[in-house]
Amino acid sequence: MDRPLIDNLQYANWSPAIFEQLRAGGVDAVHVTIAYHETFREMVLNLERWNRWFEAHPDMIFKGLSANCVHLARRSGRTAVFFGFQTPGPIEDDIGLIEICHQLGVRFMQLSYNNQSLLATGCYEAEDPGLTRFGRQAVAEMNRVGLVIDMSHSAERSTLEAIAQSARPIAITHANPAWWHPALRNKSDAVLRALTERGGMLGVSLYPHHLKGGSDCRLEDFCAMLAEAASRYGADRLGIGSDLCQDQPDSVVEWMRVGRWSRQIDYGEGSAAQPGFPPMPSWFRDNRDFGNIRAGLEAKGFDAAEVDGIMGGNWLRFYAASFGAMA
Amino acid sequence: MDRPLIDNLQYANWSPAIFEQLRAGGVDAVHVTIAYHETFREMVLNLERWNRWFEAHPDMIFKGLSANCVHLARRSGRTAVFFGFQTPGPIEDDIGLIEICHQLGVRFMQLSYNNQSLLATGCYEAEDPGLTRFGRQAVAEMNRVGLVIDMSHSAERSTLEAIAQSARPIAITHANPAWWHPALRNKSDAVLRALTERGGMLGVSLYPHHLKGGSDCRLEDFCAMLAEAASRYGADRLGIGSDLCQDQPDSVVEWMRVGRWSRQIDYGEGSAAQPGFPPMPSWFRDNRDFGNIRAGLEAKGFDAAEVDGIMGGNWLRFYAASFGAMA
Repeated sequence: MDRPLIDNLQYANWSPAIFEQLRAGGVDAVHVTIAYHETFREMVLNLERWNRWFEAHPDMIFKGLSANCVHLARRSGRTAVFFGFQTPGPIEDDIGLIEICHQLGVRFMQLSYNNQSLLATGCYEAEDPGLTRFGRQAVAEMNRVGLVIDMSHSAERSTLEAIAQSARPIAITHANPAWWHPALRNKSDAVLRALTERGGMLGVSLYPHHLKGGSDCRLEDFCAMLAEAASRYGADRLGIGSDLCQDQPDSVVEWMRVGRWSRQIDYGEGSAAQPGFPPMPSWFRDNRDFGNIRAGLEAKGFDAAEVDGIMGGNWLRFYAASFGAMA
Repeated sequence: MDRPLIDNLQYANWSPAIFEQLRAGGVDAVHVTIAYHETFREMVLNLERWNRWFEAHPDMIFKGLSANCVHLARRSGRTAVFFGFQTPGPIEDDIGLIEICHQLGVRFMQLSYNNQSLLATGCYEAEDPGLTRFGRQAVAEMNRVGLVIDMSHSAERSTLEAIAQSARPIAITHANPAWWHPALRNKSDAVLRALTERGGMLGVSLYPHHLKGGSDCRLEDFCAMLAEAASRYGADRLGIGSDLCQDQPDSVVEWMRVGRWSRQIDYGEGSAAQPGFPPMPSWFRDNRDFGNIRAGLEAKGFDAAEVDGIMGGNWLRFYAASFGAMA
């Protein structure tokens, strides 16, 4: 299939207007976050909301379950929407919910968000004891059913252990290399080498706190980072995970950061002076701007196959290998 | 497809031994009750248990989702297991859970059990005000997604209203005609005529409390009842819904009858003298005895096509028309 366009992480305040932008931008597939700190039952309410959107807008979107859905999306001029969790909260303390969530269409799950979870440690904890007992069991079960392990918000040791223990390649769906921009959420060279040497994928983020220069980051700097990452890890291990949080009120970034675990505000990657969502770079405001990134990659000297891979082909290959039961 | 064997209602205490009996009896598909009074989350625990059985015994059973699964079962020498609820408890007060349950593989749901539910009235209530406001909405939503309405334990008026309001044929998965054995749980001629005239199916029950003569009911009397039912409603509207509750402790019949709604014991179809599961008729002890029923039907004078229909072909036709989204 020629030139699929896949964004492997968004958390928009979804609406028909954004679905129209997905179509205007030619996005064939998008991995959307459907839960942060929700219990299983609360997460199901979010699934119900997506069911209503799919019912109301079958001309624009449908539920993505396998790589074949990306092909169907291209043939029918629609966007396949794949589901993921940013915390393991929805599986509660019940390993059987991993298969149930996969049966409900969930395809990615982070083992931890910024905090310690039942499975692994998050990147903002002072100590990282690595995968927990439940975490090691969950890795094996996620491997078995085809639920992709995502370590975007996890801490270093936990991430290295997940990469090593997983029998299948894992993903960091939305982060950038720390050697480019040393934010706590960005990833060390050691993590990115281990991830990609085992066949895993890095989705590079457009979220300003992950960018060198923040909202003022220049497209050519972003593409230079991708060129250096390609030389270190291989262009075929890179894709996009924009972390686009479009049209969200700032109350939502509070929910993402604080959930129900703190009585005090935690600014996460923000600060008291900048508590809300930062403005997006001028060259990537929403789903209609992927062409700018493609052009930037071409200008940087990537060949056509590399550009096509980074813009979606690499995620598509990963989807094909990852979402089914383990052989 | 020649001669599929389908039992459209069982609630066994499932075990590898019973799965082996399903195979020994040549049962191609079985509709199993996976919930009575469970909340949604509790019902999901039951789904998880089935996932583990499917994982452990892929040579004998697999999850049934469509009529094609019955064909697959026959080709591969296995039994397709279809899921259903005997009360609407698992959808709680949330119409969105109807589609979620269908996505999880549930294919039948009773609108009420013996008591009043949020949707309809049960057959043991003194008053039957018919479908509720939520009930009418639920009928339309079940029609839309392909979740079959089952009125086996519902009261007369509610049942007639469900038949009339449903845009698709419904089922009484396990009951017998009241003109044969006037138990509260058996169905009036008016209900059975309305059901079958609109394309609905009656699954005849082998549960002793539904049989004339109880556990001592003779096979030829049972088959004579089927012959009379065929003359009134058409042989193509009849199938089997044995209500086999194999290997269950009597505590389970208490759960079925009392759930969490009463502090007093309610004997349902039993009595203080006979509080537990009654013994099955000698000619239908378990899944290996369907051949006796087939032989009884042949002896009664049904022709081969009628016998094949009652033993499974009619349910297969109903499955093919019922489990998908409404056209």
